[in-house]
Amino acid sequence: MAVPENFDVAHLGPVELLTPSFDESLWFFRDLLAMREVARIGDSAYLRTWDEYQLYTVKLTATDAAGVGRTSFRASSRDALERRVAAIEATGLGDGWTDGEVGTGPTFLFRDPDGHAMAVYYETDRYVATDDRPALKNQASAFPGRGVNARRLDHINYLAKDVEACGAFVADALGMRESERIRLDNGRFAAWWFHFGLKSYDVVYSDDWTRHGNRLHHIAFAPDTREDILKAADIFLENGIHIESGPHKHAINQTFFLYVWEPGGNRIEFANAGARLLLDPDQPVVEWSEQERRKGQAWGMKTIESFHTHGTPVV
Amino acid sequence: MAVPENFDVAHLGPVELLTPSFDESLWFFRDLLAMREVARIGDSAYLRTWDEYQLYTVKLTATDAAGVGRTSFRASSRDALERRVAAIEATGLGDGWTDGEVGTGPTFLFRDPDGHAMAVYYETDRYVATDDRPALKNQASAFPGRGVNARRLDHINYLAKDVEACGAFVADALGMRESERIRLDNGRFAAWWFHFGLKSYDVVYSDDWTRHGNRLHHIAFAPDTREDILKAADIFLENGIHIESGPHKHAINQTFFLYVWEPGGNRIEFANAGARLLLDPDQPVVEWSEQERRKGQAWGMKTIESFHTHGTPVV
Amino acid sequence: MAVPENFDVAHLGPVELLTPSFDESLWFFRDLLAMREVARIGDSAYLRTWDEYQLYTVKLTATDAAGVGRTSFRASSRDALERRVAAIEATGLGDGWTDGEVGTGPTFLFRDPDGHAMAVYYETDRYVATDDRPALKNQASAFPGRGVNARRLDHINYLAKDVEACGAFVADALGMRESERIRLDNGRFAAWWFHFGLKSYDVVYSDDWTRHGNRLHHIAFAPDTREDILKAADIFLENGIHIESGPHKHAINQTFFLYVWEPGGNRIEFANAGARLLLDPDQPVVEWSEQERRKGQAWGMKTIESFHTHGTPVV
Amino acid sequence: MAVPENFDVAHLGPVELLTPSFDESLWFFRDLLAMREVARIGDSAYLRTWDEYQLYTVKLTATDAAGVGRTSFRASSRDALERRVAAIEATGLGDGWTDGEVGTGPTFLFRDPDGHAMAVYYETDRYVATDDRPALKNQASAFPGRGVNARRLDHINYLAKDVEACGAFVADALGMRESERIRLDNGRFAAWWFHFGLKSYDVVYSDDWTRHGNRLHHIAFAPDTREDILKAADIFLENGIHIESGPHKHAINQTFFLYVWEPGGNRIEFANAGARLLLDPDQPVVEWSEQERRKGQAWGMKTIESFHTHGTPVV
Repeated sequence: MAVPENFDVAHLGPVELLTPSFDESLWFFRDLLAMREVARIGDSAYLRTWDEYQLYTVKLTATDAAGVGRTSFRASSRDALERRVAAIEATGLGDGWTDGEVGTGPTFLFRDPDGHAMAVYYETDRYVATDDRPALKNQASAFPGRGVNARRLDHINYLAKDVEACGAFVADALGMRESERIRLDNGRFAAWWFHFGLKSYDVVYSDDWTRHGNRLHHIAFAPDTREDILKAADIFLENGIHIESGPHKHAINQTFFLYVWEPGGNRIEFANAGARLLLDPDQPVVEWSEQERRKGQAWGMKTIESFHTHGTPVV
Repeated sequence: MAVPENFDVAHLGPVELLTPSFDESLWFFRDLLAMREVARIGDSAYLRTWDEYQLYTVKLTATDAAGVGRTSFRASSRDALERRVAAIEATGLGDGWTDGEVGTGPTFLFRDPDGHAMAVYYETDRYVATDDRPALKNQASAFPGRGVNARRLDHINYLAKDVEACGAFVADALGMRESERIRLDNGRFAAWWFHFGLKSYDVVYSDDWTRHGNRLHHIAFAPDTREDILKAADIFLENGIHIESGPHKHAINQTFFLYVWEPGGNRIEFANAGARLLLDPDQPVVEWSEQERRKGQAWGMKTIESFHTHGTPVV
Repeated sequence: MAVPENFDVAHLGPVELLTPSFDESLWFFRDLLAMREVARIGDSAYLRTWDEYQLYTVKLTATDAAGVGRTSFRASSRDALERRVAAIEATGLGDGWTDGEVGTGPTFLFRDPDGHAMAVYYETDRYVATDDRPALKNQASAFPGRGVNARRLDHINYLAKDVEACGAFVADALGMRESERIRLDNGRFAAWWFHFGLKSYDVVYSDDWTRHGNRLHHIAFAPDTREDILKAADIFLENGIHIESGPHKHAINQTFFLYVWEPGGNRIEFANAGARLLLDPDQPVVEWSEQERRKGQAWGMKTIESFHTHGTPVV
Repeated sequence: MAVPENFDVAHLGPVELLTPSFDESLWFFRDLLAMREVARIGDSAYLRTWDEYQLYTVKLTATDAAGVGRTSFRASSRDALERRVAAIEATGLGDGWTDGEVGTGPTFLFRDPDGHAMAVYYETDRYVATDDRPALKNQASAFPGRGVNARRLDHINYLAKDVEACGAFVADALGMRESERIRLDNGRFAAWWFHFGLKSYDVVYSDDWTRHGNRLHHIAFAPDTREDILKAADIFLENGIHIESGPHKHAINQTFFLYVWEPGGNRIEFANAGARLLLDPDQPVVEWSEQERRKGQAWGMKTIESFHTHGTPVV
């Protein structure tokens, strides 16, 4: 796969999550994850993690069914945005410009081949803390000191009917580079990991066994330490949140992880990469065979059944 | 300061350290830091951390006095290398091409305004593990499971007669962006932090109170966790290594840190950033005043005296 | 010193803290330490840590000056209580029986030679969680998942005019064993550590340079991990609490520590001992000389000046 | 069950492990666990953890089949030893006195009702470090800074044909107190936890489904932190050691755990209790029903099948 040599997209931006249990989901993000609600518009609450430099991180929207709404990506510059829009339009999947929301400037809408709503923007307001002013001025707002204390959004993992097509799309349209992938014995990719900059992954496509389209496997937040993730497990245990799997260590990209289901049914991961970065600008992709995957996670835990049967919307 | 919009340099590459106590320094890096010696040429040992994708991380050279030799930077592509060489030559500080060493391809030499030897290259061999093959194929070699287990080199902090001139140089020549700085009441910068990609700093210039030139404040390694750094303190304690300061948390860039002196006299830091990344491509520089610095580190520890009186070479 | 062979006292029980800033102190213990108020009687709030099996851990009392009120100790059995009362009465420092408070049964009052109010009891009510019921039934109440999450009280450190006399008293009266001590060049003890059971210390006497009497150096809480203590430092930083010293590791008894001043002025420690226990029933006392103490803490940090000038009440 | 009110036994002492793969088992304990061999007598190596105050912790003996040899317990005093010997003789399971080995004084031999060899002693030599002298004089020897760095032995878990009979025996003979137990729907105990002093368990009996007798479920070591256990998993992964289960957190007694099989086939646990201690001298036993156990471990992981099918000797 020809990967364009560029860094046009800086990072994964705000993601919209859909929930049929709005109040409970809001409690999960606001009270257990210590996120702050910065706006409420229509059926949506806009929530931010404590070190989010933008105005919001997650848009939580009341709907009939769980799932993912629009995923946003921030371009590195005005020029970079133009280049990306041109690249997206060339794929025929562009949906045109719209006004941004809650601090976000002009936004170009598009969809990936699986139908996931996406957007790219460059202009953004920076969060100005008020009663949550931090003691150290190089962080966005005060460390909450409660709940999971997730610092920032880390990545999104979509279910896709055609993993190869979607992966090729984000490589072309967003300039993402692949880091790792699982190739089944039949030659198809079971999952494909893509990244911006030094992070080992920001967007993942996993095989949607239902062939439904436009479904979510999970979004992930990044606490600072593995200990934070162990504490998170205690917090979820005490609060009756379904812990699906972990804490454990992924073989792929070696992230320390914990998976839970928020009350709306969406799978949420907490992931810590330690000091691991992808420094090599030409890093060869790491490919895992079906047999290698059977070994389970890094320390041997087998992937839990529901990991391959639960996605949102539930179909 | 006009920062060029580019990512031409991927990361800090191998650094040469000079030591008047070669055997003891080698013991420090090989036995306490669990680095592996991959080559011995002349008076130099080439050592790698366990997750270094290149052949070596530190070149340790026996000399009369401690200090820093050449610092290398890896370009992101062949084109990027050419652009950087042109930018360096435009400053008048270029020293021309040379063959690389120990797996490194053609290398362009230069010096910063303070006289620190530097180099930029693109081609590099990737390490192929032999008896140190890792269990997971997405890491460069086996986790050593002994000593400090530093995963990778993190950054370098130079002493400089003229911090402003040196900072402007790495911005122009290497395309680095500033992240933070200390501005004294007299308007001069006491220290200036620069970064590539998402890391919050890779190169730092600190004021050289001696006006000697070409001196080192420290190099830093990145273990995976803060607990690794606490354990490192125990290991250094047991092995008679001078612990200068820490473990504690920096106010600037919020790194959790430990400073020791390796037996040759060079200051070595162990630094952990947690999940903190500089995602914002336009992040405004964070400037600290002299008064703000007087508050000490993040949790109030005052900067130790020797931090401002010890550098290598000792003059 | 003849140490009686017994385990008559099970552990340090509730401690009364005096504060001239009741509301702010209450906020500190309740909101930052995640303690729960279980009773309010007169000028006192009774607060418990989340894994306290009794009804309360700290009695916080509004007074004119900071300091320590009564320290309680729980006997191991009814017979043990009788033996201790007899031993205390033999010292001439007994003050007679009183009714216990907030779940505590008959209580025998006494004072140590420095005038610190003490008490010993056996009968105690066990806490029955209501809206704070834990998910796992082998813990006293739900893990709060906010603030410092201190699991339990760990130890108390008194200032004393005569360290030797006070140490001999708790050995005789309470059957405590010494674990470590600092002997100055003049032969006097600068501080003396005593313990019940397998813990390395529960009561400490430190030299009161003011010769005032009945003063407190600090009380300590035990979070589960060193990471908890690092997070606590961030929480105190954000909340404007004076961080006096640490996080660092004590040479004596090797505890990982953090010292802060609660808003009333009392010094509060957070201490973690790792897996270290005093298993040896005859462990020889560890004595540190004045010269050894000059080396500072385990990793070299010098003891901060205020550690030897601040106690409560401030005199 | 009437538990005698005493503290006659101080702690679990050295345990003999039997291995059919002596060299590989020795490598496991010496190289991966950083234990030190202090003696070699006949077919046995005597190994100590770094903070063991006695001369040795584990006696590793070459045999035909894996399993457990003699378990030793240290009495709190000479009088306590006499009381325990009298109590053991009263059960009819005493085997008489023998000379101790490798620093251990006169030793009284006995067997539990399941046939596990046991011994109780009081006199013991204290380890005097030589080339492994610690920097801090309050620890037994230098922190090794390699491998798993297990500080001390923590507990032993036996398989037993009759859990109730064995539990009643250690309560009577050794004065142990029960902390937790699992009661099946048929009224029998599936497992029973007993402790000395403040530790939550030191000896456990688990149901031996084979009714073989004299078998081992596992022995456990105590590293200082949960992070140590996560690192241990990486070390075992790199060294080809079978990781059976974990890292995860037990519901029972809430220990953070990792189970591996040493090369001889014996299950070895690494366990961390955080700051949790059983302070209450009368703590009511915590009983778990069969239904409660079906919920799995604290964070939901189901107990792995081999946990109920593998014991040593393998039968």
